[in-house]
Amino acid sequence: MPDGAAFGFEVLARDPHGRARTARLATPHGTIPTPAFVFCATKAAIKGVTPTQMRDAGTDIILANTYHLMIRPGAERVARFGGLHRFMGWDGPMLTDSGGFQIFSMGHGGVADEIKGRRRPAGESALLRVGEDGAEFRSYADGAKLFLSPEGAIQVQRQLGADLIVVLDECTPYHVDRDYTAQSMALTHRWGDRCLAEFRRGDDGRQALYGIVQGGVYPDLRREAAAYTADRPFFGTALGGSLGSSTDQMRAVVSDCMPYVHPDRPVHLLGIGGVGDILAGVAQGIDTFDCVSPTRVARHGWAVVKGAPNERINLRNARFRDDPGPIDETCGCHTCAGFARGYLHHLIKAEELLAITLVAIHNVFTMNRLMREIRAAIHAGTLDELAGAWLA
Amino acid sequence: MPDGAAFGFEVLARDPHGRARTARLATPHGTIPTPAFVFCATKAAIKGVTPTQMRDAGTDIILANTYHLMIRPGAERVARFGGLHRFMGWDGPMLTDSGGFQIFSMGHGGVADEIKGRRRPAGESALLRVGEDGAEFRSYADGAKLFLSPEGAIQVQRQLGADLIVVLDECTPYHVDRDYTAQSMALTHRWGDRCLAEFRRGDDGRQALYGIVQGGVYPDLRREAAAYTADRPFFGTALGGSLGSSTDQMRAVVSDCMPYVHPDRPVHLLGIGGVGDILAGVAQGIDTFDCVSPTRVARHGWAVVKGAPNERINLRNARFRDDPGPIDETCGCHTCAGFARGYLHHLIKAEELLAITLVAIHNVFTMNRLMREIRAAIHAGTLDELAGAWLA
Repeated sequence: MPDGAAFGFEVLARDPHGRARTARLATPHGTIPTPAFVFCATKAAIKGVTPTQMRDAGTDIILANTYHLMIRPGAERVARFGGLHRFMGWDGPMLTDSGGFQIFSMGHGGVADEIKGRRRPAGESALLRVGEDGAEFRSYADGAKLFLSPEGAIQVQRQLGADLIVVLDECTPYHVDRDYTAQSMALTHRWGDRCLAEFRRGDDGRQALYGIVQGGVYPDLRREAAAYTADRPFFGTALGGSLGSSTDQMRAVVSDCMPYVHPDRPVHLLGIGGVGDILAGVAQGIDTFDCVSPTRVARHGWAVVKGAPNERINLRNARFRDDPGPIDETCGCHTCAGFARGYLHHLIKAEELLAITLVAIHNVFTMNRLMREIRAAIHAGTLDELAGAWLA
Repeated sequence: MPDGAAFGFEVLARDPHGRARTARLATPHGTIPTPAFVFCATKAAIKGVTPTQMRDAGTDIILANTYHLMIRPGAERVARFGGLHRFMGWDGPMLTDSGGFQIFSMGHGGVADEIKGRRRPAGESALLRVGEDGAEFRSYADGAKLFLSPEGAIQVQRQLGADLIVVLDECTPYHVDRDYTAQSMALTHRWGDRCLAEFRRGDDGRQALYGIVQGGVYPDLRREAAAYTADRPFFGTALGGSLGSSTDQMRAVVSDCMPYVHPDRPVHLLGIGGVGDILAGVAQGIDTFDCVSPTRVARHGWAVVKGAPNERINLRNARFRDDPGPIDETCGCHTCAGFARGYLHHLIKAEELLAITLVAIHNVFTMNRLMREIRAAIHAGTLDELAGAWLA
């Protein structure tokens, strides 16, 4: 940790027309401007992109998943390598989640899709038991039984050593009724208090803890959860769980929370990465976002493009076969500077690994550009015009 | 093509103890020092490594495969994109092969392994017919019948636009008898003359043509083939076909050829990439080498390491799980500067794409380092000592 570094959150400007704001979020590994997008290095690697390429594409902050890393290579092993920053060669700000999202999304039969209300896949549950003490689940690597308590989630994240860490929560899917959601939220709050106690026991100033707001799609529960986090000395607030299955539903859930979260703390919206969703979230005061989508869609040939219908184009499409232009004429990324759509189309058809890397670099750059333009628009009071330019 | 650029080959130094030499090989896209290693961008991409990363790893020259590119995306399409250099974003010297190697190695039931005498796989042949006029074969992409004549091989390579191009040859496998090899060699020579005529018809100074030496494992045929190329106005000489299945056999075949190739032209040894094989080839006067191995073995977790047993280590091995050191303490590559063996082991076990990229970058750097150290050792007269340091 650099000398004199500390955590902080300073609001710089507010949108005169709404809740959007720009701020500086300080961590021991650097200070980043917000609103910001946090890229997912799920298993301690951005898929197909080196840390240097991430930096060159304008990236300020990334995250890694506690759930994946505690299974492989193991948090103790990461600690022996000096923590995640050294292990993966990323010296900037970093966040880890608590592991709860993956444990419970598996437990409810699916992954993110289920949380988002899109489908309910079959298959044996990997979540074995949830109790007051924590959650028992199976390792996807070797089938071994694993257990995560609230205290354990903090200890594991301490071993991983990210700057920003998150309390353990039970993450309920979209279809759960109000009673279950209320009980689950109460459990999450009891876990949150235990996480906070464990965090303070070991606090050495190198990490800062986010509380988490659950409550499903029920406005009164969201309000109660937001107030719970505001009443406790968390550094930041994360909005988690089911955010519905559309931008409108997400907007409704976020608007249920935002009047009640602590106004002076950074607010992170978990698992949201669409351009329209981000613009809607920023307008409601969200400071940071994360999602696997920029690199995941790249693996399927999708490039995020400012102003494109549905926010992106699919380079696998035959109409790009002879296209000599870059993905986006207005983009300044490494990929757009040197490679034509037609070449990228060829790489995708030929199943060349380089396609994934080059499209991912473009998508990362584009998300960072979106956030940069959002920050400038908040200062200028032109967020609505910016949204119009990005969304076709 | 830069103004005033031209082809040339100037020998700078000779090993006092043998045939090894250093030289400058000039092309319209730059001048490279030899001995040099030529990396395979088979389908117009180095697998998992960007052109910028290739440059940063010290790469001077790459090649692409005519056979693959004429099938997909098609040589005419590459030409419409301005040629291979612009298509794939590589502005340095580049070579294309004639397509013969892939057509005939498929035709004889396998690929490189068969040429190298290692096995004889089953399976329907994709080579349909070889005649005086050329070779008919099936596209692996859509099963369509394709035909390549000697003239066509030159025309396709002209459309691709690499600096260094190669005549069409029939490439015989290791097990073929002397009579067939002799007949095949004679066909290759008739094709060579037709390639040369076609090349001279369209020569605009932007490409230079290599003749090819076949003749299998038969010393008199190799001698005849070498003399054939020396007697004709080729820019360079490529040694092709079966080079046996061991370094000793390769050395024997090369030594059958080298006294008879043109002494003032660059000599390329096709498809050889082992450290020991390269050191043996250099000692016999070979100037350039190519092989898919540095990037192919990276995809299986193998890192080429100076002085390691069998020239490399496998990072998938559990003994590297907790290893905090770089792949090679003496290496200056991007990967060794920032990432531990234990991290790379984790990436491989987690099947992260980044493993391929990071190990490939190391292997590319290491091959370029080998060639750099070879050039210095030739100047210093210490090639034997260098071989001892690289080969455990």
